[in-house]
Amino acid sequence: MKKKNKPAKPQVREDERVEKSKKAVLAATYELLTKAGLSGVSVDEVSRRSGVAKTTIYRHWPSRESLLMDACSQLSSRPTVPDTGAIRSDLEQLACGVAARLRQPWATVMPSIIDAAERDKQLADLQSRIHSQMRAAVVTAIERAQERGELPKSQDARELVAAILGPILYRRFFSREPLDEAFAKNVVERALCKRD
Amino acid sequence: MKKKNKPAKPQVREDERVEKSKKAVLAATYELLTKAGLSGVSVDEVSRRSGVAKTTIYRHWPSRESLLMDACSQLSSRPTVPDTGAIRSDLEQLACGVAARLRQPWATVMPSIIDAAERDKQLADLQSRIHSQMRAAVVTAIERAQERGELPKSQDARELVAAILGPILYRRFFSREPLDEAFAKNVVERALCKRD
Repeated sequence: MKKKNKPAKPQVREDERVEKSKKAVLAATYELLTKAGLSGVSVDEVSRRSGVAKTTIYRHWPSRESLLMDACSQLSSRPTVPDTGAIRSDLEQLACGVAARLRQPWATVMPSIIDAAERDKQLADLQSRIHSQMRAAVVTAIERAQERGELPKSQDARELVAAILGPILYRRFFSREPLDEAFAKNVVERALCKRD
Repeated sequence: MKKKNKPAKPQVREDERVEKSKKAVLAATYELLTKAGLSGVSVDEVSRRSGVAKTTIYRHWPSRESLLMDACSQLSSRPTVPDTGAIRSDLEQLACGVAARLRQPWATVMPSIIDAAERDKQLADLQSRIHSQMRAAVVTAIERAQERGELPKSQDARELVAAILGPILYRRFFSREPLDEAFAKNVVERALCKRD
């Protein structure tokens, strides 16, 4: 307890300052991303909005791309894998979680990443990482169900993943219809109908 | 027969010239779209590539947006509805057709339209028209199957459409895995498993 009341050492204050400006840069990047998509983010504009000098930004992120990657990967943390003991409720929880994320403002950034990925190798890697994060928890839930004999080992996990994530992403980005829990649960029910 | 050998009237030649330059403009727009996405298309660049003067382009298309819409709608013609007499083979044919289209170069334009649709009302309308074209044939096939009693009337057509188009679009744009006929047929089989 006593130690906490001591004045912070200069190094700690320096670290705090660095952390604060990094946070401000990432927040400004996020704001620009959701407002204008990937192509709307320039280091100039991030500097202007965050009040952090360009030289400082480039000290932490050597390029615009690395800043984009960092901002995007912070937005796409891996969901935790539910373990309800039944594949249906596990997948329902995951599907509802993905639907909830896609209702958030940052989801609007996704098409600009996918668009850039069509032409830019570095952004294709970023897109692939974001997608892997989204998919990983679903794959784990499927594999656990296969281990306990609830799903046949012959079940192609990637096809089941497509049957779950596909219709949800389709609703958000292609048909732009409401993406509620009832829809997400129906998707899981339909996906699990075919068990081979 | 005799009439055909007569020299074309000036008006006909004029119409031909107009048609030719419109075609050149649309071809240049298409080329830019597939190469650089929506944001890569400017009237300046279209004029340069097609050799058609900007004033002529603006005579046919009052704005960049109307040119984009015209170029995109030419790319997204409505597929014909198969009528094999069985919903499964109808949907297989449609699913394989969509997969084949998504393997074409122009599919690379789709994410840039979806991206723009997130922020621009006019392009959201265009995206919605392209999607409606893609969906219409599937909906017709489902409704016919409902009429002949092959699918229950309670079947929500939009959910079935999502179960078919969703995984196919997901493979093309999100997981970027091979999109072959075997996958498309599996998608249909899974989608039809749940019949209510």
